[in-house]
Amino acid sequence: MALSTQPYKGARDFYPEDKRLQSYMFNTWRRVVERFGYEEYDAPIIEPLEIYLAKTGEEIVNEQTYLFEDRGGRKVVLRPEMTPTVSRMVAAKRQELAYPLRWYSIPNLWRYERPQRGRLREHWQLNVDIFGVDDTSAERELISIVGAIFKEFGATNEMYQIRVNHRQLMSYLFKDYLGLNAETEHRISKLIDLMHKIDRPTLISRIDASLNAKQREAGVTEKLLTILDAKDLKELPNVAQKHPTYAQLQELLYELHSSGMSNVIFDASLMRGFDYYTGIVFEAFDMDTSNNRSMLGGGRYDGLVGLFGVAPLPTVGFGWGDVTLANFLNAHHLLPTLPSTVDMYVILIDVLPIYVQNLLSELRDQNINLAVGSPGKKIGDQIKVADKKGIKYALIIGQKEQGSGKYTLKNLETGDEDKLMTSEKLIKKFNELKS
Amino acid sequence: MALSTQPYKGARDFYPEDKRLQSYMFNTWRRVVERFGYEEYDAPIIEPLEIYLAKTGEEIVNEQTYLFEDRGGRKVVLRPEMTPTVSRMVAAKRQELAYPLRWYSIPNLWRYERPQRGRLREHWQLNVDIFGVDDTSAERELISIVGAIFKEFGATNEMYQIRVNHRQLMSYLFKDYLGLNAETEHRISKLIDLMHKIDRPTLISRIDASLNAKQREAGVTEKLLTILDAKDLKELPNVAQKHPTYAQLQELLYELHSSGMSNVIFDASLMRGFDYYTGIVFEAFDMDTSNNRSMLGGGRYDGLVGLFGVAPLPTVGFGWGDVTLANFLNAHHLLPTLPSTVDMYVILIDVLPIYVQNLLSELRDQNINLAVGSPGKKIGDQIKVADKKGIKYALIIGQKEQGSGKYTLKNLETGDEDKLMTSEKLIKKFNELKS
Repeated sequence: MALSTQPYKGARDFYPEDKRLQSYMFNTWRRVVERFGYEEYDAPIIEPLEIYLAKTGEEIVNEQTYLFEDRGGRKVVLRPEMTPTVSRMVAAKRQELAYPLRWYSIPNLWRYERPQRGRLREHWQLNVDIFGVDDTSAERELISIVGAIFKEFGATNEMYQIRVNHRQLMSYLFKDYLGLNAETEHRISKLIDLMHKIDRPTLISRIDASLNAKQREAGVTEKLLTILDAKDLKELPNVAQKHPTYAQLQELLYELHSSGMSNVIFDASLMRGFDYYTGIVFEAFDMDTSNNRSMLGGGRYDGLVGLFGVAPLPTVGFGWGDVTLANFLNAHHLLPTLPSTVDMYVILIDVLPIYVQNLLSELRDQNINLAVGSPGKKIGDQIKVADKKGIKYALIIGQKEQGSGKYTLKNLETGDEDKLMTSEKLIKKFNELKS
Repeated sequence: MALSTQPYKGARDFYPEDKRLQSYMFNTWRRVVERFGYEEYDAPIIEPLEIYLAKTGEEIVNEQTYLFEDRGGRKVVLRPEMTPTVSRMVAAKRQELAYPLRWYSIPNLWRYERPQRGRLREHWQLNVDIFGVDDTSAERELISIVGAIFKEFGATNEMYQIRVNHRQLMSYLFKDYLGLNAETEHRISKLIDLMHKIDRPTLISRIDASLNAKQREAGVTEKLLTILDAKDLKELPNVAQKHPTYAQLQELLYELHSSGMSNVIFDASLMRGFDYYTGIVFEAFDMDTSNNRSMLGGGRYDGLVGLFGVAPLPTVGFGWGDVTLANFLNAHHLLPTLPSTVDMYVILIDVLPIYVQNLLSELRDQNINLAVGSPGKKIGDQIKVADKKGIKYALIIGQKEQGSGKYTLKNLETGDEDKLMTSEKLIKKFNELKS
């Protein structure tokens, strides 16, 4: 029986046209984060199970990891996220590294989920982290980078929204204002994560079920809903202003607004699934109604590096997946036409490749990308092949051209021909086209 | 107990300085293969076990794969090589694709082996394949690409050697000249793969053990050794010339030599471990005695695409790992000094970041990569941080500079300072430095 040509379920093959789009996204990510002084790192796709047990979140570890034993009996995981890995790497060189440390990576991540729109079993994710900054200048920088990336892709403020919250502010309101104990607070937090996936009556009944009778009678459910509905710091109960994080958020929002990011708002219902966040958290949402998902998320996780037995290190980071980005670019018509990386298709008519190898080497040395057609095939058929591959130019070399050193360059889009192309002219033309 | 900071055994963390080297290697690979008209593709790191069972070779599948069951009970493998994957992808679009098809990829590959020099449990490998060419122009193009890559890295012909053989020529000599049956031939082939790892007496006794008494008496062992020792086609028994592959090899070597690749030789002992090769095979060896390993290998595998239930397709490909390449560059002192991707470290003295954000945006928009230091820290300490990160320039902005728009640029290598740097001057300077 023949083998199946399908890729592993929920994962993607990247044919050259797909890979061009991915390279465009990755290169744009890289260019912008490097402008902010971030340096690229990488790590193995396999990690020991242990590093996820502490903080990644139960659902992910127990139900969604690619977990297996290697041939030496070690329990290992195909990484579902990069944060534990980067924390491990920083911890390993905690003393040697110079802070603030700005790092990024574009790892491939795996989760065993039911494949659905915007979420496959694998994706590539831009991870950007800053280590060693304990004030909100770190959050401001990362959110500014998100804005700069959107801008580089051609997006305007209307196309997306960044929502910001502070875990400690919520915790303060839950404990001191609503009087919840730690266990109830944790349960409510997990519920809030689901809030936009369930309807209002279900939400209310689940909140009620998490509270005791006295709390319900005291109107805690209503007060909690008022908090969660707040889309502006001013909509929170006045008591919120007593907590120092209130002023921090206020300042952060002010600074981002004054730098032109009018689309950053406070959102009390933003929690983020991971257990490791300790301060400000943020997410970006696509405003196109067809993509009503969080596109990227991040926040402060000051406790993770310290789990590796070194002094704790303040850290803020975010992750941005390639699938949600591609959906966003697509929905907002921001995908550029990406030409083939092949500049020219060389068609030889009754000329052996060995006789033109010096010419081809000369052109290649000038960074002109050229593919040689099949000798012996008809010129019309070869042009069809070049066309199918999306190559814009054909260089036609017959015996006459080989002798004269003047070749025919045909633009396959317009049909225009230039029959007097010398190697110098070709080099000049393509250098201009590519600059 | 604190978590370990070590990466998974036999796999590598890439800190920014390591990643810079890797990016240098990958970008050089990409640049050269794209000049030859190859387009990049990619695929999931997980593949169904089935695609390796037919042709990859028993030892690899049974002893060296990262094989496990996913949560849906599917037997899957972390790919140990890319050839079955690319064959699968081409087969899936066998009719739509235009030939000759030139593809490349730089996948991460995994094998469970005892880690040793030049071979870890994972590596990244440049894979270059051409589909749809049945004559030796395909092999010539791929070997030329190998030569062009070596040249681009600064290597000379003396530093490496490319060895070439033809499976069918060997098969002809084994069957028709030595009279071996198919089973003995297969056993001998496996033995030849080990030939350079065992001593001569062991080799001879193992060959003897593979033959029957009559063959031993007829001197088959000696004849076989004469063949295997051949480092020139002329050293083969005269009968070899009767087979058409002899002239093919002769022509290939002639063409490569005349294009300047004097370091390509025939080597009858070259077999290549994979079962799927059907014609010419080749490997490149590092001539530095400290790296006596094959650096890369490839050959023709005309049967693999057809295993996926489509019409067979002539194919030639090679794979080149990043670990052996790095060892080669290192041994031959070809590693360049790779500067930090951060152009400039911005040191603010009593100036809030918000007051310089327009300046920083202006510089970043011109592709100047800059990291902002920690406000409040002493200038000397901040310069130390920049130095430790390998950043060459510091831009110092105090209140006076902020007011005048003239900043101090300090070259941290020479100590030179320019106190009259405007944003225009900075942009001009860095554009020149980077071009």
